[in-house]
Amino acid sequence: MDKEPFGGMDPEEFRKIGKEVVDWITDYLKNAEKYPVFSQAKPDDIKRQLPAAPPASPEKMETILADFNRIILPGITHWNHPGFLAYFANTASAPGILAEMLATALNVNGMLWRTSPSATELEELVTDWLRQMLGLPAEFHGVIIDTASVSSLVALTAAREAVHKRVREQGLSGRTDLPRLRLYCSEHAHSSIEKAAIILGIGQESVCKISSDAEFRMNAKALAAAIEEDRRNGWLPFAVVATVGTTSTTSIDPISAIADICQKENIWLHVDGAYGGTAAIVPEMRYVLDGCDRADSFVTNPHKWLFTPMDCSVLFTQHVGTLKQAFSLVPEYLKTTDGEVNNYMDWGVQLGRRFRALKLWFIIRSFGVDGLASRLREHCRLAQEFASWVDADKDFERLAPVPFSVVCFRYHPNGISDETKLEQFNSQIMEQVNATGEAFLSHTKLNGRYTIRIAIGNLATAEKHVARVWELVKNEVVKLK
Amino acid sequence: MDKEPFGGMDPEEFRKIGKEVVDWITDYLKNAEKYPVFSQAKPDDIKRQLPAAPPASPEKMETILADFNRIILPGITHWNHPGFLAYFANTASAPGILAEMLATALNVNGMLWRTSPSATELEELVTDWLRQMLGLPAEFHGVIIDTASVSSLVALTAAREAVHKRVREQGLSGRTDLPRLRLYCSEHAHSSIEKAAIILGIGQESVCKISSDAEFRMNAKALAAAIEEDRRNGWLPFAVVATVGTTSTTSIDPISAIADICQKENIWLHVDGAYGGTAAIVPEMRYVLDGCDRADSFVTNPHKWLFTPMDCSVLFTQHVGTLKQAFSLVPEYLKTTDGEVNNYMDWGVQLGRRFRALKLWFIIRSFGVDGLASRLREHCRLAQEFASWVDADKDFERLAPVPFSVVCFRYHPNGISDETKLEQFNSQIMEQVNATGEAFLSHTKLNGRYTIRIAIGNLATAEKHVARVWELVKNEVVKLK
Repeated sequence: MDKEPFGGMDPEEFRKIGKEVVDWITDYLKNAEKYPVFSQAKPDDIKRQLPAAPPASPEKMETILADFNRIILPGITHWNHPGFLAYFANTASAPGILAEMLATALNVNGMLWRTSPSATELEELVTDWLRQMLGLPAEFHGVIIDTASVSSLVALTAAREAVHKRVREQGLSGRTDLPRLRLYCSEHAHSSIEKAAIILGIGQESVCKISSDAEFRMNAKALAAAIEEDRRNGWLPFAVVATVGTTSTTSIDPISAIADICQKENIWLHVDGAYGGTAAIVPEMRYVLDGCDRADSFVTNPHKWLFTPMDCSVLFTQHVGTLKQAFSLVPEYLKTTDGEVNNYMDWGVQLGRRFRALKLWFIIRSFGVDGLASRLREHCRLAQEFASWVDADKDFERLAPVPFSVVCFRYHPNGISDETKLEQFNSQIMEQVNATGEAFLSHTKLNGRYTIRIAIGNLATAEKHVARVWELVKNEVVKLK
Repeated sequence: MDKEPFGGMDPEEFRKIGKEVVDWITDYLKNAEKYPVFSQAKPDDIKRQLPAAPPASPEKMETILADFNRIILPGITHWNHPGFLAYFANTASAPGILAEMLATALNVNGMLWRTSPSATELEELVTDWLRQMLGLPAEFHGVIIDTASVSSLVALTAAREAVHKRVREQGLSGRTDLPRLRLYCSEHAHSSIEKAAIILGIGQESVCKISSDAEFRMNAKALAAAIEEDRRNGWLPFAVVATVGTTSTTSIDPISAIADICQKENIWLHVDGAYGGTAAIVPEMRYVLDGCDRADSFVTNPHKWLFTPMDCSVLFTQHVGTLKQAFSLVPEYLKTTDGEVNNYMDWGVQLGRRFRALKLWFIIRSFGVDGLASRLREHCRLAQEFASWVDADKDFERLAPVPFSVVCFRYHPNGISDETKLEQFNSQIMEQVNATGEAFLSHTKLNGRYTIRIAIGNLATAEKHVARVWELVKNEVVKLK
């Protein structure tokens, strides 16, 4: 038997160990709760246990797996733990894991249709399923990209191309015919938007951050005024990024009003629904995407709140032609005679494209659309529960509305108004809760106020976990007194 | 038992099916050769067999897997087939698959040190192992990025930052103080370099493509002359991209001579060794990176020729400070109190970062450095063998040197000099060989000549496969006569 495809391992050894790994994964997912969710490792704890130089000779897989358990695992912060409530919680669901196992073994690069017709056609199909689930019009076409950071970069590259200034050919620098480009987003937009502006050569100073209302939503009137003033001052407004589910508070920008402005001003509207977008799968939450049918591009991340293992971000656009115009570049060695097929390499930055459609297909089929909706609905219900506990406690205050599954709150006892002191209290509460290993929370600042966030998004998170966090927080408050 | 972490599947059902999937993978890797390497599917063959709308209710995993086998598999081009000899062949080796299974289950996002210390520290360690294996100096620090397309984009963003023109803050457009930026690469550089120039706002016309010598290597004198002329004409040269292992012929640019020029001119040197770089692991091939110790950045892709499942590209740089200066952007919700730790989100575009270090660690340990080197050495030997058959046959000609594991050749019988006719012959030979399902080849053009490429890079490819390709090619030639 030729061992080579297995790379030194015997095929039957791979089969045996592969099944042990499946046992490990099954037990891990059943018992993730038994690990401290937030790794207790100190800097360099992991690295100093590992040899600084690579081994010349092969090591046994048993040894490697033993080291994985002994050294690596204690340095893992458990994103699949039901007490993971930081940032945006996510899940590697079982159907997604099975699909990733197959995709990894196939190791397809879906750059061209011919390099695996199934990869391209399943990506077309499954992104269209998602489009239907979100209630977006049929004019939107989807492409799977690794992360929303890159999806938004791709969308904004297309937006820049759409201003028809031969930017692709001539670039931006040293040109007398080209005014400074201007990009708009709210002060609560994700940092990836500003990063995209840096990469694209727009510059951070050319990102105009529009103020928000009391509920952290972009002020549409301020947007209109800013565009008008910028035009007067010789800027070239080229894109607005609105957000459905901002990172700090999950606020929803007024997309319809923003779309009105973009339409009137002929500016590309990109909507970042990386987290919040998938909530539109829940019929009674469909409204969160109101107005998005008029967006030029829209991104949502199944790897955030649709139980898909990292990474999987879906970018939709009504202007595939513009996207391709911005990105398509076909050297001789990638030319084909396949005719009118879709080569996804033309849609973005990356030439190497993993077969990510497979996991999304497995997940949508295994959960069913109603099954996905019921999980998202439950997460939102849990958030409402938590919010009600906060609201009912006179020593706490809620700092933002709860349109999705994230609650922003802080400890704020009567009589204390010093922000520094409140920050000290709340950061201490959070760090102490995180140190218990039972829950992992993160923070933000809202109007200068230090804010604890609880973000519910893991499949395994149930009412008992959320209740336990509230208990842990209250325990820490007692210690402060 | 709480089923929720498994997303509707029963844990024991997941365990059982997971093991069936391991059986499937084992049998697949053992028998990949029995599938047609190049999918015989016609456009829409896959999509039309699948329902256009997503299911409302859950479907059984057995049904989904049956559809995977019945519908998806026939539309797969088998990158793990030993007859896959197109583009750059790659491999999802067994140790890499095991690691990906674990990484998928953990579903870690290594954006911050604290979001999994092991992910960050193992990435530091394993990229340093790779650095040692390649013989790069200790001044190089590594980061794992999804693809070389993004790695080069990141490197060139840092290069742009290094010219100190406040590009990050002010961007490129509408500025009177900023000359047009100029980027240099050979005419054989990968298309991703031009794509990066488009994205960065440099523009395609600002990519100066330096001519090559008879062996497809960048002409260093022409580079020096171009820079000098551009400076005279008011351009601002900011980066040179040299290649170790160009895509068409795997030629190696004269890195030392180019480094001399870059040093003298104070221009960032980025080396694209996405394919060829890993060959430096072979002691007697260490020379392929001669001069790369003086590069400012260097990229190589373990997912190309180091048996690592997609995706895994390693970017090295001697200027981590500049990289961070270009990219670091830390909103409040990502601020930590962890002190002097490395947060890899500061090193590039993406915030979401899969735990890719794990597979590289498994692979290096399971193969051992010598084991990896012996496989690469064998691939190069096979290429030399194939080249010798081409050279010995008067009806064929070899169109480029063979420094690595790729052979460029064509059928060129005596008396035929019409390039159109030769292209017709050779494209027909290639398409017919691909249609057999036994081998998958791709093509390029060299000095206007249609060229067939055979790229050896899959672990399972042995002498018999290479010999069979030669037989298939010769069979097609007989049919032409």
